[in-house]
Amino acid sequence: MEAKLQELKTRLMEVDDLEHANALLAWDQTTYMPPGGAPARGRQMATLARLAHEKFTDPAIGKLLDDLRPYEESLPYDSDDAALIRVTRREYERNTRIPSAFVAELNEHIAATYQSWTEARPANDFARLRPALEKTLDLSRKLADFFPGYEHIADPLIDFADYGMKAASVRAVFAQLREQLVPLVQAITAQPPADDSCLRRSYPEDQQLAFGEAIIKRFGYDFNRGRQDKTHHPFMTKFSLGDVRITTRFKEDDLGYALFSTLHEAGHAMYEQGINMAYEASPLAGGTSAGVHESQSRTWENIVGRSRGFWQHFYPELQKTFPDQLGDVPLETFYRAINKVERSLIRTEADEVTYNLHVMIRFDLELQLLEGSLEIRDLPQVWHDRYQADLGITAPDDRDGVLQDVHWYGGLIGGAFQGYTLGNIISGLFYEAALKVHPEIPGEIAQGRFDTLHGWLKTNIYQYGSKFTANELIERVTGGPLRIEPYMAYLRGKYGELYAL
Amino acid sequence: MEAKLQELKTRLMEVDDLEHANALLAWDQTTYMPPGGAPARGRQMATLARLAHEKFTDPAIGKLLDDLRPYEESLPYDSDDAALIRVTRREYERNTRIPSAFVAELNEHIAATYQSWTEARPANDFARLRPALEKTLDLSRKLADFFPGYEHIADPLIDFADYGMKAASVRAVFAQLREQLVPLVQAITAQPPADDSCLRRSYPEDQQLAFGEAIIKRFGYDFNRGRQDKTHHPFMTKFSLGDVRITTRFKEDDLGYALFSTLHEAGHAMYEQGINMAYEASPLAGGTSAGVHESQSRTWENIVGRSRGFWQHFYPELQKTFPDQLGDVPLETFYRAINKVERSLIRTEADEVTYNLHVMIRFDLELQLLEGSLEIRDLPQVWHDRYQADLGITAPDDRDGVLQDVHWYGGLIGGAFQGYTLGNIISGLFYEAALKVHPEIPGEIAQGRFDTLHGWLKTNIYQYGSKFTANELIERVTGGPLRIEPYMAYLRGKYGELYAL
Repeated sequence: MEAKLQELKTRLMEVDDLEHANALLAWDQTTYMPPGGAPARGRQMATLARLAHEKFTDPAIGKLLDDLRPYEESLPYDSDDAALIRVTRREYERNTRIPSAFVAELNEHIAATYQSWTEARPANDFARLRPALEKTLDLSRKLADFFPGYEHIADPLIDFADYGMKAASVRAVFAQLREQLVPLVQAITAQPPADDSCLRRSYPEDQQLAFGEAIIKRFGYDFNRGRQDKTHHPFMTKFSLGDVRITTRFKEDDLGYALFSTLHEAGHAMYEQGINMAYEASPLAGGTSAGVHESQSRTWENIVGRSRGFWQHFYPELQKTFPDQLGDVPLETFYRAINKVERSLIRTEADEVTYNLHVMIRFDLELQLLEGSLEIRDLPQVWHDRYQADLGITAPDDRDGVLQDVHWYGGLIGGAFQGYTLGNIISGLFYEAALKVHPEIPGEIAQGRFDTLHGWLKTNIYQYGSKFTANELIERVTGGPLRIEPYMAYLRGKYGELYAL
Repeated sequence: MEAKLQELKTRLMEVDDLEHANALLAWDQTTYMPPGGAPARGRQMATLARLAHEKFTDPAIGKLLDDLRPYEESLPYDSDDAALIRVTRREYERNTRIPSAFVAELNEHIAATYQSWTEARPANDFARLRPALEKTLDLSRKLADFFPGYEHIADPLIDFADYGMKAASVRAVFAQLREQLVPLVQAITAQPPADDSCLRRSYPEDQQLAFGEAIIKRFGYDFNRGRQDKTHHPFMTKFSLGDVRITTRFKEDDLGYALFSTLHEAGHAMYEQGINMAYEASPLAGGTSAGVHESQSRTWENIVGRSRGFWQHFYPELQKTFPDQLGDVPLETFYRAINKVERSLIRTEADEVTYNLHVMIRFDLELQLLEGSLEIRDLPQVWHDRYQADLGITAPDDRDGVLQDVHWYGGLIGGAFQGYTLGNIISGLFYEAALKVHPEIPGEIAQGRFDTLHGWLKTNIYQYGSKFTANELIERVTGGPLRIEPYMAYLRGKYGELYAL
């Protein structure tokens, strides 16, 4: 058994090496690669994805998994070996349904589409991307169809990102959330808007960068095992548990733009950096779902990084960094500015309260596209219509409309967005659980200390990687299933106080 | 036949994708990777190298090469298809002798050793590297022994880098060169040394970077298909014909340090950027030998970049960039400073005249190590002794002694150095051939124009990639074999004038 387990691990390591080499190709593509590198890069990424898929779906792995079943069944559910075999089997059964040639085609298409998007978005040119996006939709449907028996065609794609969720279950949670969010947004936006002009002054990029990096170092992001680079659309990526990187971008006239993105991506990265090193180069060495991953980015970005206590400690440091810009701005003005609630156009810059409405638009449109009730050619208009209906505003162009998010242009249509709102909900659940054990956490944050929170997250979430599913993790941590109440209570508490509701 | 050729090309492309993904892993390792990434990176590079080797040595490729032999023989020698089959067969026959497991072991060892060197060199700690270097020597010998029947154990390793050369033939050329160089060095160093203090003023890094990049843009290095990053030890690397990158490093108090390194690496890169795009992702898509590659870096660094004509045009621009540092320095003083001949310690910073003596030391030590007449433990002392004997100076420590070059710590012992001096010799040969057809080139350089020279090099050298061997290329371009006379004539002309010999 030991020899078989070792052989499985060796094979999985080879797959992991190919996948993480491919992650570096992708990171480089979006950070440093010159334009001339694009055609070959797409082909290279497709080749590595195909080889990784071929290696992972090798029947020898299936045989090993079969042979290891008695051993797995002899172990407690939460032993590392049992988890490795269980999670590998789940991934193996999923991946063996997808032909390697399809994986190569999909990856090559995505790489080429991403490259076009980086040029088409600044040019506001949706038409140029339309044929590529139609192919993406077609490939997304084909991918779903490798998993027949679904209730909704989006189900397999949602399951990839958020194992255990389906279109129907996401819709149910989202409906519940929407019902409570819409009146909250209405109550807040009926009041005079916060003044956030202090964020729009001129903030030199170098100082923004240094300040943001100083903060995430304090959070516990380990720069010996990571770094930050510039890109179009920020992301976190991992090349090994010892090398977990983040990216960001800057606007000189928007202080929050880079800063909160950096805190967000650092939250993702701290999750990965916190995984048990014994899982290195195995399917356990990664966050367990899109939702749980997002819960960590939102915890550090919002629950911590937009809290009054946090800025009670850090605002004087920020003022020292930018004396000309913020010397005359009181803490309370700044705190209200970074938590300004407004009906806005850009998801990634949206406040905590309206953010989920942005996500729901995309989630609904994904389902409609996959169902065939919406055509790609109508997408830009329907996007504008939905923003008008849900948020009461319309973007002046597609650049800040349907072209704003990289997801459909750098990945699949389907399964790309629900994780963002699930993440918000889960961040509320986990933070409530942490406070139950450590009520001192908010006080520590107000002193610029994050050890207790970071430690609790490492112990209860991070270390496990993908050992437990999202639902298992939620059950273990909170003693019950996914529920929206703690998150809504967090929002109501914070914004009720801010807007005296 | 067409189908078989296509299948061969498809298989070669897959190998190429793995190799160039690996090149990116290596580039990242030496530019941006955080320290924590090192252990996994070594393993990942080993895996990709092993897979590339397995794919390339697949008997199916051998079968295709056999099947394609009649087709190859029906074609003229210089047809692209004939060259592809011929060069692939040469590489296939070489690579099938080396077991894949050995390739993986070698690559993993090299990656780990490189990482240690980046820490051990600043710490002047040769002892720490000794066990690794002993293993490198052992692996280098093993590699040579996969090619029995050699005259000298270094022959297979020299042949990898400079196909068609052997220890004996390199020794013969080097002896000839040495005989003429030593009296030249003696004659020059008997005179008062040039004053190069103007290069030692304070030159801010950003302006150095901008000036260097402006120059190589003028040379014809295409930044749409490349970029420059910072590293410990400058190099050129390629991820595709559309993405050929260079690296450099800076010293604020040494203007020549980064500048000439940038011109040098740009020369390598322009060679790769000039290869026929039809060769993309095949064994033809790379420079044909270490020597020919180096001839191009040295052409742009020295023959062009350290010529009086070049600076007649660019020195006013340089003075404008650094008015405080160079405003009071006449062109002639600057020209003499950048061509100062002296007995110095560091190969990469050595002048054109003494440079080859540095190379010969390393070449001789490699042969002795491989033969077993020199032990790794004695290497630091023997290094110092040779510098004393050949150049009349001794480094104060190993940092600027045996630890100075990355080659043995980031690659094999054997075959690593002869290409540098062969490159100098070849640069003289090719430049003489270019001037025969285009005597106007020096005049154009003095006007800051490089089109004629760059065009001639593209047409006669670059476009061919590895289609012709170094010896074939030299024969085609000069009508004869490798000879040192044009290079020595160039050195005698330039330095005879400078030092009134």
